[in-house]
Amino acid sequence: MRKAAIIGVGQTPVGEHWDASIRMIAADAVHAALEDAGLKSVDALYVGNAYGASFSSQSQLGALIADYSGLGGVETFTVEAGDASGGAALRTGYLAVASGAVETALVLGVEKSTDTVSTAHTRARNVSLDADYEAVQGATLTALAALVMRRYMHEYGVDLSAFENFSINAHANGGKNANAMYRNQIKPGAFARAPMISEPVSLFDSAPDADGAAAVIITSGERAGDLVPRPVEILGSAAASDTLALAERADLLDLSAVRASVYRAFQQAGVTHRDIDLFELHDAFTILSALTLEAAGFAERGQGWKLAKDGQIGLAGELPLCTFGGLKSRGNPVGATGVYQAVEAALQLRGAAGANQVADARIALIQNIGGFGSTAITHILSV
Amino acid sequence: MRKAAIIGVGQTPVGEHWDASIRMIAADAVHAALEDAGLKSVDALYVGNAYGASFSSQSQLGALIADYSGLGGVETFTVEAGDASGGAALRTGYLAVASGAVETALVLGVEKSTDTVSTAHTRARNVSLDADYEAVQGATLTALAALVMRRYMHEYGVDLSAFENFSINAHANGGKNANAMYRNQIKPGAFARAPMISEPVSLFDSAPDADGAAAVIITSGERAGDLVPRPVEILGSAAASDTLALAERADLLDLSAVRASVYRAFQQAGVTHRDIDLFELHDAFTILSALTLEAAGFAERGQGWKLAKDGQIGLAGELPLCTFGGLKSRGNPVGATGVYQAVEAALQLRGAAGANQVADARIALIQNIGGFGSTAITHILSV
Repeated sequence: MRKAAIIGVGQTPVGEHWDASIRMIAADAVHAALEDAGLKSVDALYVGNAYGASFSSQSQLGALIADYSGLGGVETFTVEAGDASGGAALRTGYLAVASGAVETALVLGVEKSTDTVSTAHTRARNVSLDADYEAVQGATLTALAALVMRRYMHEYGVDLSAFENFSINAHANGGKNANAMYRNQIKPGAFARAPMISEPVSLFDSAPDADGAAAVIITSGERAGDLVPRPVEILGSAAASDTLALAERADLLDLSAVRASVYRAFQQAGVTHRDIDLFELHDAFTILSALTLEAAGFAERGQGWKLAKDGQIGLAGELPLCTFGGLKSRGNPVGATGVYQAVEAALQLRGAAGANQVADARIALIQNIGGFGSTAITHILSV
Repeated sequence: MRKAAIIGVGQTPVGEHWDASIRMIAADAVHAALEDAGLKSVDALYVGNAYGASFSSQSQLGALIADYSGLGGVETFTVEAGDASGGAALRTGYLAVASGAVETALVLGVEKSTDTVSTAHTRARNVSLDADYEAVQGATLTALAALVMRRYMHEYGVDLSAFENFSINAHANGGKNANAMYRNQIKPGAFARAPMISEPVSLFDSAPDADGAAAVIITSGERAGDLVPRPVEILGSAAASDTLALAERADLLDLSAVRASVYRAFQQAGVTHRDIDLFELHDAFTILSALTLEAAGFAERGQGWKLAKDGQIGLAGELPLCTFGGLKSRGNPVGATGVYQAVEAALQLRGAAGANQVADARIALIQNIGGFGSTAITHILSV
């Protein structure tokens, strides 16, 4: 298997792009990545998108976006794994280049979530839950997260304050990111007083759905060095799954897919926890962050929240998390989120993260999750 | 890039499975393929599905089906390219195994198209057209095919009888396939008298949407020979795209994505037209068959229909097409169709096609199309 590296990145601001259609924001990210890499074209376009059919009545995005962004004719298709769609597209691009079948691939994540609003939005988004056993009962991802969070609080005897630093950190970082959706700061104590969405998940606890598109260009490790001064190597790539329905799980507080995919990515990359300089994790809810840190082996069971509590997750901490604001502050352009993570990690590793820079960042862990841990896709990037 | 081969195949009958949900028919095909390969598990599950979100309100099928079919925990995601989704999943499985990252992959195509009916079905299916410029105007894929067919008839001065042998051939072959949806025969002359769906596309001209699931198991060429007596090697794999909207095309009668993907697959496989023993083409409409034969280089421009007219496409002909009935008679379980093509071609190459056997079949060409030629994914299989 040959090496593969990221040689170009692009992104649109994350937010509510009422004036643009899905193909338009997609093309913006494609063009930005091509310009960044100094390329005019690529050999393949893999699109990560979760809800095109249900939000925008639009599937077959590959051919649509290839044509609209001037890549017409190129190999292309869409990759979907709920909210982990961007990560799955990244894995596809990696496999295509690593195989030798594709020389240069553009991986695009795109979501136009504001095409539907209100209950229609909830219904459209619920397609990634178990339709027969969860969505039909009125469950939403937020409601499921609330069930798990309550269980965690009960099991480990913690209150809401245990979780607030995840959100405070996200907004502290997002406030310095010009592409972030919400750049306001969250004051200590405000988290526990925030309006409830699905108790105990509050407004300050759940990441906002958004519009956005992000792109990375991958080529062989050999060619990458000839094209750009600082290619970002993909050291590890792995995916794993768990049940869609929470009711099917033996242990609600164990994210087995997170555990498995991190383990495999570490194995492939030949790195371990102390090598990781930053972790772009999937902070759709603070409970998901806490459980991710535990399943990924950065904290003991029931102790994930303490990493945030102890202030280790800031840009200058032991394990910086969500360095550009994460899903919570940068925003969650759902099927694009996994590619935003890759863009942000690449900027860190290039030393091009500006005010968000983690000093001496050499190895980054990124993880994109679909459902409440149903699909977990992990990559390790390095310079 | 290492070699990859198909070592197991499975399929459900194609038809209206009102009594089964999408996960149930998916699991049937998964289990059949595992049994055929003599395996208990695989390392990855790639799902080809086009309309899960819009037909069944169900996405993130990878994790759902992995869990339900006993492959829980495995790497998995869904691949979508409209009606070429199955072919795109096959390409993904090929890339994963060829890269060396995945040892054994199960590629599943699945569609549950009877979950919606009537105009809701049309609306749900229209997500793979250009939403802003075609679907919103009331266009359907059948209506677009009708426009192209009329242009073809005008340009080349042919009438409906030019196309009938494609459908006659499909039903002649499908009649011998126990998994086919429509096993009736079409009599000469009946085609031109069939009720019109969207003139000149008639009931006998358009393939029926259906439920179905098909699976193939791919492993490295090296390992394949140790596991099964007659592995089917994937000699070539390629994808290409064209505009989604027909109005964007310079030439309505040229399927450029078909041309490009066939050319690349031939190049990789080191074969040419006369090496092909059978062609599982995407006969959603007879006009698509005629234009495919032309773009793929089996006929001159405007002459594709003559191959059928001259009787060369039967099981004993020069270029057998749709040997198990194709989309027209076997049925079109949309996102699964590309995997059915692979299953059927593999059975031919193993010499296990029974009454549908093409004598001495050694090299098969299969091609799955999304939209009216918007995505074309081509594979060449060989024993």
